[in-house]
Amino acid sequence: MKRSDRLVSMTNYLVEHPMKLISLPFFSEKCGAAKSSISEDLAIINRMFIADGIGFLESTSGAAGGVRYIPSVDSERSESVINVLCQKLEDPERILPGGYLFMSDILGDPVTVKEIGRLFASRFANLKIDSIVTVATKGIPLAYAVASYLNVPVVIVRRDPKVTEGSTVSINYVSGSSKKIQTMVLSKRSLEPGENVCIIDDFMKAGGTINGIKSLLKEFDANVKAIGVLAEAEDEEEERVVDDYTSLLQIKNVDSNNREIEVTKGNYFFNK
Amino acid sequence: MKRSDRLVSMTNYLVEHPMKLISLPFFSEKCGAAKSSISEDLAIINRMFIADGIGFLESTSGAAGGVRYIPSVDSERSESVINVLCQKLEDPERILPGGYLFMSDILGDPVTVKEIGRLFASRFANLKIDSIVTVATKGIPLAYAVASYLNVPVVIVRRDPKVTEGSTVSINYVSGSSKKIQTMVLSKRSLEPGENVCIIDDFMKAGGTINGIKSLLKEFDANVKAIGVLAEAEDEEEERVVDDYTSLLQIKNVDSNNREIEVTKGNYFFNK
Repeated sequence: MKRSDRLVSMTNYLVEHPMKLISLPFFSEKCGAAKSSISEDLAIINRMFIADGIGFLESTSGAAGGVRYIPSVDSERSESVINVLCQKLEDPERILPGGYLFMSDILGDPVTVKEIGRLFASRFANLKIDSIVTVATKGIPLAYAVASYLNVPVVIVRRDPKVTEGSTVSINYVSGSSKKIQTMVLSKRSLEPGENVCIIDDFMKAGGTINGIKSLLKEFDANVKAIGVLAEAEDEEEERVVDDYTSLLQIKNVDSNNREIEVTKGNYFFNK
Repeated sequence: MKRSDRLVSMTNYLVEHPMKLISLPFFSEKCGAAKSSISEDLAIINRMFIADGIGFLESTSGAAGGVRYIPSVDSERSESVINVLCQKLEDPERILPGGYLFMSDILGDPVTVKEIGRLFASRFANLKIDSIVTVATKGIPLAYAVASYLNVPVVIVRRDPKVTEGSTVSINYVSGSSKKIQTMVLSKRSLEPGENVCIIDDFMKAGGTINGIKSLLKEFDANVKAIGVLAEAEDEEEERVVDDYTSLLQIKNVDSNNREIEVTKGNYFFNK
């Protein structure tokens, strides 16, 4: 295979397998080229990934060595993703009763969802995450987007047990705003004891839901290494019960009467 | 930019933007190269995409012309994806009460989910799909995977209305197996009248759920152009009420007593 052919094939393979250690002999064989040529190809790919702001290649030497594509987002690209989201969310047509915002269209767009996933993956890439945990329904697309860049499985906590989950572990908790007792269930087969997990959700007010997930994860002896939420908003009635989270957006001053919303950057840009 | 640099950058851009028409001047400017050089680059990329079995580039000439990456899967790759899934699903540990199978681990793996999404996208790429519709919860990851290859939004039908959906349209229907009246709701803002939609779900027995979605979509004047389900199984009590679907897998003979399952290829391989 010629260099030009190899570059297309290897770029595509690396982008499809983020975080996976790929040995040089694998590429050598796949592309029918000497290891020295493959090394030169990888140097070009690394340089262009950095130039395009999508991450870099990490090389490990030795017998078990190889190369790994680490997705990351440079600050220019992350600022521009977040600025577009802020603008979209400030549309007063989004205001719903109770100070909520309509976000389903944004969460329904796979390109936006992937961009958001890449931002979180970039921040959490060095935490040795084993699984992404989310709660049905709205957090699911974001969780998969993060998981696909970190190359780990997604585990979905449900509000209601279903036969297709097999045997489950469940907890009851009191939700922040409504003070009602709520239930969360998770399939027993979904996590091994001691896994490092990252919780992803779309929205957080006081944090009762995230706290519920944390309690449920204790039953699985999981280590919560990171919590990522797309948008945070203040709860007028309750203080926040979760503090160690990363948010991309902060929704402030949802004024239903005057139809005004203020959306600013979340702590993603300050907690580096 | 040199050819080698351009190939990495353009490959990555095309893979990230499937189905999107990209003009040659866009690449010319992005890469600082003449259109003739860009055309040669695209010929190399097209050849390698075909060789790797991940799709091809479609060129359109004229003033509004450009190039579009059409994801597709060759038969060798699709056979191997499906064979792996069949083997995984035939594990008797998966048998659950009622003839259901535990599939959450498979649906939780982003690599598998993407492969499945690519198979459906490949089959439905020429149907001019505007949106992917699924029902919460298990179909969501598959729907996003298909949507990301077709570059269209995802719309999620829910069983229960939520404040964050805004105003909704709802229907009641009778479920196939349980004969209970069930409800489905969809946010009014989610679809424009006359959209071409593709329904994606993980599992279908008699097809009551899919039929429910179809009724709901009638309220939005949507045209159901395709239905894709990961696995189909026979319902012992009811005849199938949906016939125009594409399935990847067929689950046969779930024998809870002898702990045996037979999983074969779905109609994907016969309905070409």
